[in-house]
Amino acid sequence: MEPVVNRLTIIGQGLIGSSITRAVSANRIARELVVTDASPKVRKTVAELGLGIAKVVETSVEAVRDADLIVACVPVGQYGALASEIGPHLKAGAIVSDVGSVKGAVVRDMLPHLLKGVHLVPAHPLAGTENSGPESGLADLFENRWCIVTPLEGASENAVTTVRSFWKALGSEVETMTVAQHDKVLAITSHLPHLIAFTIFHTGLKHEEISNSEVMKYSAGGFRDFTRIASSNPTMWRDIFLNNKEAVLGVLKQFNLDLADLAKAIETDDAQKIVDVLSTSRLTRRKVIEKEHISVTAPKREHEDAFPIVRPYGDD
Amino acid sequence: MEPVVNRLTIIGQGLIGSSITRAVSANRIARELVVTDASPKVRKTVAELGLGIAKVVETSVEAVRDADLIVACVPVGQYGALASEIGPHLKAGAIVSDVGSVKGAVVRDMLPHLLKGVHLVPAHPLAGTENSGPESGLADLFENRWCIVTPLEGASENAVTTVRSFWKALGSEVETMTVAQHDKVLAITSHLPHLIAFTIFHTGLKHEEISNSEVMKYSAGGFRDFTRIASSNPTMWRDIFLNNKEAVLGVLKQFNLDLADLAKAIETDDAQKIVDVLSTSRLTRRKVIEKEHISVTAPKREHEDAFPIVRPYGDD
Repeated sequence: MEPVVNRLTIIGQGLIGSSITRAVSANRIARELVVTDASPKVRKTVAELGLGIAKVVETSVEAVRDADLIVACVPVGQYGALASEIGPHLKAGAIVSDVGSVKGAVVRDMLPHLLKGVHLVPAHPLAGTENSGPESGLADLFENRWCIVTPLEGASENAVTTVRSFWKALGSEVETMTVAQHDKVLAITSHLPHLIAFTIFHTGLKHEEISNSEVMKYSAGGFRDFTRIASSNPTMWRDIFLNNKEAVLGVLKQFNLDLADLAKAIETDDAQKIVDVLSTSRLTRRKVIEKEHISVTAPKREHEDAFPIVRPYGDD
Repeated sequence: MEPVVNRLTIIGQGLIGSSITRAVSANRIARELVVTDASPKVRKTVAELGLGIAKVVETSVEAVRDADLIVACVPVGQYGALASEIGPHLKAGAIVSDVGSVKGAVVRDMLPHLLKGVHLVPAHPLAGTENSGPESGLADLFENRWCIVTPLEGASENAVTTVRSFWKALGSEVETMTVAQHDKVLAITSHLPHLIAFTIFHTGLKHEEISNSEVMKYSAGGFRDFTRIASSNPTMWRDIFLNNKEAVLGVLKQFNLDLADLAKAIETDDAQKIVDVLSTSRLTRRKVIEKEHISVTAPKREHEDAFPIVRPYGDD
């Protein structure tokens, strides 16, 4: 396969950045690969690991010199500072991309620092593991995962094609949507569920009458299902919530109305209304899954169906 | 092992009832076993399956004749009707137990129909699978699962011991608590999580701007984690919510306050407050798990740790 990029730079070598470094090296997706990280320790680890064709340099400014494509893999709150640092040093025609979970804020923070002739093409790979750091990267992390590319209005077609091809070469299924649409889709599918899961743990584990060990002991009844997402990194999620505030608070408002509706039905013994709410979601979900064959490309956790249609314990 | 019970009756042969039937037969937990179900079709299936020593009879009244222990395994909403039917036919000294997910309502509905000299000892096995019906029962369904026994004030010690021994013989870890405590613990560990999961699916799948297939497509970011519990049986959960109304609405109130607090922190850019909430739950959970070794006896789903401390995809 012909390399997608001539000279590629990856800034940030955590789980995502170092996984890209591995995949690019393994599949020769770029002719030259320069990587860096703000942390000397991380740079040292990456150099010692000897990740394929990657050349490790000390600063972002040095890393972006002559780069055709720059993929920034830093926390959501740090894209502005990074852009202001590298902005003046990008060559004309360079393409800048990222991996942030929120696109509006990344565009807002980076765009003002990029000169005319430099192309910003935001992207968000929906992939990850429970680990972090350069040691944890995996060359196949992006295989069969979604990557959402969110081109800006009037974006260069060539630049968008390059970023799409780049993620396809990494094994991802690439979808395109607007920045605003991405942030709404993620608010529903990821950010609201996290907000809720964090809160339900908070409520359950500070209850006055029931001890924490009792809550954990009997958590198989449902509480435990929130564990995976409620154990997510607090700093990362603070940044996501703050940077996608409008969309998150928007879906939260709808959720609150729906929850109040259901609570009222319980309070007033409206049995039919309760069954309607509980059944509709279940049927809609099944219909969508069956009709769209979503599970084909939706990422699966190991040993688990993508959408298990199961029932927890209970009466019969 | 000496049988725990002389003559045992199990009313209801769905997943739970038929699992008890299988386990009792396999381990000779009773000398005689009589079972029944309101549905002729279910009775026929049980008879055809030939579940060990179980004798299938047509009516509950016939089934309870001379029984020493009666375990009723019917939906939460049906214990009152059942008790009024069998009440006059129970022998003096008989023990009546159940498997309902809500204890207060079961006691409220059954007790008035039981004569003096009959002992009501409520119990709730925290076990189940995604299947239902008599074909789905498993002899080992209760092994290493919790069973919570909730004796009433002034209960006969012998009767309580018999019910505890019965569940231990089925392989369960038996805990005792009051009816009120059980209903509060379950409201937090099971009922509230279900209420929330049903609602989040409802909100996500009726969103106007985002199609259902988009929501399901990108659901690995968190939404999907609510799938297992949001696909629970609507009728069963309607009954649970309505029969544990007070405890459920009580913890929901606390949840709503906590959620509003977190939303306000996001709205006002209170970064420290957000991290505090997100970290506290995580740390408390870890501490509890490590200190109490909860995972030893907490039920696990196959191929999965009881409490995976993991992080979904995202930035690094």
